[in-house]
Amino acid sequence: MAYRDEKLHEEKVFKDPVHRYVHVRDQVIWDLIGAPEFQRLRRIKQLGTSYLTFHGAEHSRFNHSLGVYEIVRRILENFKDRPNWDSRERLLCLCAALLHDLGHGPFSHSFEKVFKLDHEEFTQRILLGDTHVNQILSKVEAGFPQKVADVINKTYSNKLVVSLISSQIDADRMDYLQRDAYFTGVSYGHFDMERILRVMRPMEDQVVIKESGMHAVEDYIMSRYQMYWQVYFHPVTRSAEVVLSKVLHRAKELYDEGYTFKLQPVHFLSFFAGKPTLKEYLALDEAVTLYYFQAWMEEDDPVLSDLCDRFVNRRLFKYIEFNPNSQMKEWMELYQLFTKAGLNPDYYLVVDSSSDLPYDFYRPGEEEERLPIHLLKPNQELKELSRLSDIVESISGKKRTDHKLYLPLDRLEEMSSRSKTKKRIMEILYG
Amino acid sequence: MAYRDEKLHEEKVFKDPVHRYVHVRDQVIWDLIGAPEFQRLRRIKQLGTSYLTFHGAEHSRFNHSLGVYEIVRRILENFKDRPNWDSRERLLCLCAALLHDLGHGPFSHSFEKVFKLDHEEFTQRILLGDTHVNQILSKVEAGFPQKVADVINKTYSNKLVVSLISSQIDADRMDYLQRDAYFTGVSYGHFDMERILRVMRPMEDQVVIKESGMHAVEDYIMSRYQMYWQVYFHPVTRSAEVVLSKVLHRAKELYDEGYTFKLQPVHFLSFFAGKPTLKEYLALDEAVTLYYFQAWMEEDDPVLSDLCDRFVNRRLFKYIEFNPNSQMKEWMELYQLFTKAGLNPDYYLVVDSSSDLPYDFYRPGEEEERLPIHLLKPNQELKELSRLSDIVESISGKKRTDHKLYLPLDRLEEMSSRSKTKKRIMEILYG
Amino acid sequence: MAYRDEKLHEEKVFKDPVHRYVHVRDQVIWDLIGAPEFQRLRRIKQLGTSYLTFHGAEHSRFNHSLGVYEIVRRILENFKDRPNWDSRERLLCLCAALLHDLGHGPFSHSFEKVFKLDHEEFTQRILLGDTHVNQILSKVEAGFPQKVADVINKTYSNKLVVSLISSQIDADRMDYLQRDAYFTGVSYGHFDMERILRVMRPMEDQVVIKESGMHAVEDYIMSRYQMYWQVYFHPVTRSAEVVLSKVLHRAKELYDEGYTFKLQPVHFLSFFAGKPTLKEYLALDEAVTLYYFQAWMEEDDPVLSDLCDRFVNRRLFKYIEFNPNSQMKEWMELYQLFTKAGLNPDYYLVVDSSSDLPYDFYRPGEEEERLPIHLLKPNQELKELSRLSDIVESISGKKRTDHKLYLPLDRLEEMSSRSKTKKRIMEILYG
Amino acid sequence: MAYRDEKLHEEKVFKDPVHRYVHVRDQVIWDLIGAPEFQRLRRIKQLGTSYLTFHGAEHSRFNHSLGVYEIVRRILENFKDRPNWDSRERLLCLCAALLHDLGHGPFSHSFEKVFKLDHEEFTQRILLGDTHVNQILSKVEAGFPQKVADVINKTYSNKLVVSLISSQIDADRMDYLQRDAYFTGVSYGHFDMERILRVMRPMEDQVVIKESGMHAVEDYIMSRYQMYWQVYFHPVTRSAEVVLSKVLHRAKELYDEGYTFKLQPVHFLSFFAGKPTLKEYLALDEAVTLYYFQAWMEEDDPVLSDLCDRFVNRRLFKYIEFNPNSQMKEWMELYQLFTKAGLNPDYYLVVDSSSDLPYDFYRPGEEEERLPIHLLKPNQELKELSRLSDIVESISGKKRTDHKLYLPLDRLEEMSSRSKTKKRIMEILYG
Repeated sequence: MAYRDEKLHEEKVFKDPVHRYVHVRDQVIWDLIGAPEFQRLRRIKQLGTSYLTFHGAEHSRFNHSLGVYEIVRRILENFKDRPNWDSRERLLCLCAALLHDLGHGPFSHSFEKVFKLDHEEFTQRILLGDTHVNQILSKVEAGFPQKVADVINKTYSNKLVVSLISSQIDADRMDYLQRDAYFTGVSYGHFDMERILRVMRPMEDQVVIKESGMHAVEDYIMSRYQMYWQVYFHPVTRSAEVVLSKVLHRAKELYDEGYTFKLQPVHFLSFFAGKPTLKEYLALDEAVTLYYFQAWMEEDDPVLSDLCDRFVNRRLFKYIEFNPNSQMKEWMELYQLFTKAGLNPDYYLVVDSSSDLPYDFYRPGEEEERLPIHLLKPNQELKELSRLSDIVESISGKKRTDHKLYLPLDRLEEMSSRSKTKKRIMEILYG
Repeated sequence: MAYRDEKLHEEKVFKDPVHRYVHVRDQVIWDLIGAPEFQRLRRIKQLGTSYLTFHGAEHSRFNHSLGVYEIVRRILENFKDRPNWDSRERLLCLCAALLHDLGHGPFSHSFEKVFKLDHEEFTQRILLGDTHVNQILSKVEAGFPQKVADVINKTYSNKLVVSLISSQIDADRMDYLQRDAYFTGVSYGHFDMERILRVMRPMEDQVVIKESGMHAVEDYIMSRYQMYWQVYFHPVTRSAEVVLSKVLHRAKELYDEGYTFKLQPVHFLSFFAGKPTLKEYLALDEAVTLYYFQAWMEEDDPVLSDLCDRFVNRRLFKYIEFNPNSQMKEWMELYQLFTKAGLNPDYYLVVDSSSDLPYDFYRPGEEEERLPIHLLKPNQELKELSRLSDIVESISGKKRTDHKLYLPLDRLEEMSSRSKTKKRIMEILYG
Repeated sequence: MAYRDEKLHEEKVFKDPVHRYVHVRDQVIWDLIGAPEFQRLRRIKQLGTSYLTFHGAEHSRFNHSLGVYEIVRRILENFKDRPNWDSRERLLCLCAALLHDLGHGPFSHSFEKVFKLDHEEFTQRILLGDTHVNQILSKVEAGFPQKVADVINKTYSNKLVVSLISSQIDADRMDYLQRDAYFTGVSYGHFDMERILRVMRPMEDQVVIKESGMHAVEDYIMSRYQMYWQVYFHPVTRSAEVVLSKVLHRAKELYDEGYTFKLQPVHFLSFFAGKPTLKEYLALDEAVTLYYFQAWMEEDDPVLSDLCDRFVNRRLFKYIEFNPNSQMKEWMELYQLFTKAGLNPDYYLVVDSSSDLPYDFYRPGEEEERLPIHLLKPNQELKELSRLSDIVESISGKKRTDHKLYLPLDRLEEMSSRSKTKKRIMEILYG
Repeated sequence: MAYRDEKLHEEKVFKDPVHRYVHVRDQVIWDLIGAPEFQRLRRIKQLGTSYLTFHGAEHSRFNHSLGVYEIVRRILENFKDRPNWDSRERLLCLCAALLHDLGHGPFSHSFEKVFKLDHEEFTQRILLGDTHVNQILSKVEAGFPQKVADVINKTYSNKLVVSLISSQIDADRMDYLQRDAYFTGVSYGHFDMERILRVMRPMEDQVVIKESGMHAVEDYIMSRYQMYWQVYFHPVTRSAEVVLSKVLHRAKELYDEGYTFKLQPVHFLSFFAGKPTLKEYLALDEAVTLYYFQAWMEEDDPVLSDLCDRFVNRRLFKYIEFNPNSQMKEWMELYQLFTKAGLNPDYYLVVDSSSDLPYDFYRPGEEEERLPIHLLKPNQELKELSRLSDIVESISGKKRTDHKLYLPLDRLEEMSSRSKTKKRIMEILYG
């Protein structure tokens, strides 16, 4: 039998807290899950630094990737005998679903910003480079790795296939909203996925939703909105993110200045220098990162060791609301205060902004456009969601931005000063 | 105000997926949670290698420790105005609950066996040694760290206090059953804790349960039974445990033989040599362990690099039922087969046994006796649980043991042999 | 001890699927629950005809009343030591919560419309008339029944007390949203009530919500919105409501015309005639109503027997969207068609409209204004919810109305006609 | 297309709180659900008098019947392509599942005992008599109603089909355990049905369970055990059952004595006289029964009116443990006390016994044997469950019996007496 059609002797089942069971029948999928590049996702947390805010959020990207695969598997089960659906695309969809996050590195967001990397580029390189995953995909057919890469890259010709993985109501989002809600324990993030799956219909170039499922979709959009502001943009998570970025910045700066590390940061050198190879990239997971952070707590550089200690032992920065337009004067004052106290404001006085467009959300680090959601009316006409839903209409396109100033309260306290800004900030922070 | 009575300006709340919220009011508790020795528990998984079987089981001991604290907090809330309860013990109970697992190291079970360590001893050393936790506890009152240590050690004079943390229905077990069920996603592990908390009553030297709550307790005992066989003793988890133990064995053996590691295993040296100091013990968490395992994949020793690769990339041993009494001949045959093929049977042919006593369970690594559960009848008489419950009576004291033989199927396949035992095993393993 | 302070020997507990447990300590509350007028609520369904759409929705008003009581009990537990809260109002709040729906009759909405009754008026009469409930309340103190009546009537002087039971985020709504979601099985209706209770604060004349709880309140508002359109205004439920109203209309009309019923409708006579006494009102619950409906299936009047059969055996009317402005011509055509076919359009061709104001919802049959929700900022300033929440702002004040035309499809089919309207309707209804 | 193969234009879906959705595709099933005899099940509570103990237990047999149908539908979905399964039996299984409880009357247990009726006989009569259900089934094929009747009667030749509906792990039990747990709100009654369905295999004459699913089955057996003692045999429910039986007894006795009822009990006459016709049986649902009970509260006979008032207004009898062997003397004493006080002990002093066999449970009113559960080993051998499961083995065959004495405490209090038994009972009852 051709490898692409090979079935496991007996179906394999993963117990999954979100979807109850993840079912695997295809030998190809089973082999991909066993590949070292996929197993590596167990060592990358799904929500980066969020576990420092929500202690339950310790789940990995391995977890999420299986979930996205399972959702796509269920969608295709429903599509099987429908018009517009070409069942030969099935395995391609399942592989793309499983592997869509393969290129994520440790604490993706911060690493990408500081080292100017792009996890999507690495996904492509893992799929197409000299890897176990590539070998497995190549056995399916010549060019199959490229096809998977194209689907994930949104350049595949069959846009319907692309939309399963990347649209405003794709399997990726449906999994992470529910999964992140489950592990953090928040009561948002629930919506009736079973119903949404039942009303999804394949069309020529996209998945659409039967109009009768509109309310379930509204509920999903609202869940998304709540999850962004309650979980993904939580100010404590952002504080951990800020400290983490500053650790990486500092390490790179020291490297650039020729600083001699007590422990040579072997795994980081290629990141500091510019372009890590694929092998180097894959070797740096969160276990390794945390290993260095703990080692760097012993470095002589006071900034690096302090920031590492703050991250590892969760002594994060505190935050206050900050309006960059009207509060520059106060910011200047603090800048001088910090400088005078010998505390480099570039590392210790950080403005961070988050913003989202409720019906066109970004996840941290994503910037691309996403297709709008279309509803299918009984007369087969398509209508864009916000034209039928008052609720979605009322929030779509309204961008909301939030600025915060992060700083180490413990250090501010120690500064002897009569600065009114200091006094005011202390008051706010102590509530 | 005395430190022991100091309350936070505003109650702190942790969102917890199992208990919904964990509430902290005491400054002492808040300070302990922030201590580096406690934050370190974030880097130790609650269920060791179980995440390789149940992908959801990635939660840490930090998670569980907060949960135990919260359960004790709720119990004491109910005890507040009851006879037999001395409210001056409150803070002591909360501290002991929070800190009871403080001494756990990475993958405790295997580490303890291979390096002859005892996590309970390290809990004592952290409480009483030169640590942040000790400093915080000492501020409460002279001798307070010793009191906490005594409660955890079950030697504290007030046995009622001890029984909250260590009995057959203590806060520890009630938390881990529910938490481990939640994160693995299995449907066992649920019982009506709210009801059990409501029927708990403090007696002179133990916590007892009102007879009207007997069925809730039966349900808890059954959950425990199911969790042991379905989760804690799952054969795949034990396979990962076997491989892990063999990695540590091999590394120690190489060290003993004077092998030169490419990467000097700095963090492990004191473990190999015998007695790690407290500081060395605390420095070795699971991130650091995984860092070394990945490094050792590049070592020249084929056994060490192979075993590390198996653990890191989850290429575990397969297993078959094995009866040590009747199957010694087959075992011998395999032993010779492995030896002939140059595969050291000490590392690659491993018998592992698990056993439990349903109403007197041990968790892996625990050996101590636990107090029986007493029910309180309306006439104030106490009766041991199994004397009132048919179900518990019928399973109590019945030990069940399970032996399995673990080996690398991929290697067995390669061996050219006409051995019938090989043939039979291959048949079993391929189902 | 005064009756108002009397506690039960042992706390009584009801197992509740929504709140887990309902706790009763006060003798007064226990006595009220046992009163026949309160037990009667077991014979009135919480959601009227919704069980014909959602088969799970068979729960009674007894169920809901206990739930509202329990929520208020928990709120007051939190209020106990707060400023602005007068703990002497506690028992009054609990009684008003428990008894607020006491005057509901069978299928309230339809009965009220057809017989021009008002369940709120009957709540007052039960509280103040010659009833067991009145006797119990009177034992608390002279004038206590009047106080309870005033709270429920929103005329009590302490507006804070009133707002616990009647505001846009009162215990009544919080219970029914969750309870109705639970029993129907829909996935809407969930919100984090535990969090909302934690951030509620008593102010001089209302309950307010700490700003930090805004997102939980948004979630509650969205649940409400979804429950209205998905459950409360479900077109099939409204169809059952339409048939039910027409049964009552017809029975009254026949009575007015002097028709001789085979079974004298003893329990209905005073309703037909005008003003039922309190005793007569209380005697007519849903069991009795269904008894008559089944009896009337045997009456000679074809309209009455047909409509009763439709209701009892769930052969409801079908519905189509209907625009009263633009579709009057088609309506006229149908009217003539029905008339010609001997089918009285007054009973068989019914336009029903539902409408809601998302952040100022009405439940069927309620018309009164409700107070807006106020958020409490850290600086103690109060802000109306929609001024801080984009989502609530965007939907508040936007009324949405839905008109449908209900008719018996089976009868329409039988009419021999070449009417295009008939043809078009048939097409729509057969999809 | 033959009626038996006719599919609905579009699948119909019921929202179900237990199974999320119930799916209907077959025209036959849709028509059966709409039949008046099936709609009548909405007016019969699933758990009889349990709603007087657990206020959530107001769900009907309609509810449960849909659930059993849905479970069988899912099982057959899995059986579709398996050996041993004859797919031509599909529609028969679905019909039998849906209709298996069709003959239940109001408060089945008491009615059956007092009037010597058998709901199973009435199921047969509805299936085979002059009913809508019979007409629908007859359209499938000649003899089809008889086939359905045989399956439900356990006399159908294909025993595999029978075992889906009637065995110790059939769809009936799996639905009611979960459903009754859901509506009562107890935390027992949960087990992993999804897993059990996945490991069910059709064999020649029964459904068996793959050995790998043994723990899920153990969990199911334990749920069953807990549900029996916690819910089905709850002493308060039995008290309501006792009062109800005595109402019926008294009414019959009065009828036998020629008593003139103020309200002629038309619906009951044939029940009193002996053999109700099918039409008379179907006309007496719980709404009608409650109508009469309320009417009888006004009767002159003090026993009937008192007992009705007790049932309707939930003034139930209290209970104490009672050992019929050792406590006959006390019983005699009470008997005389009651007689002397003019309170007929036949109605007011009632011993009720419940007993169950944990792995061979009876539901109230069921007496037939049920097949044991067989596990399928990898080598295709079958083993009876208790031979592989220690837990099940330890409880199987152990009958447990519970005797209680029920009496009206309020009346006992009033009796002037120095009886020690009275004193002792009063003490027990007041705790």
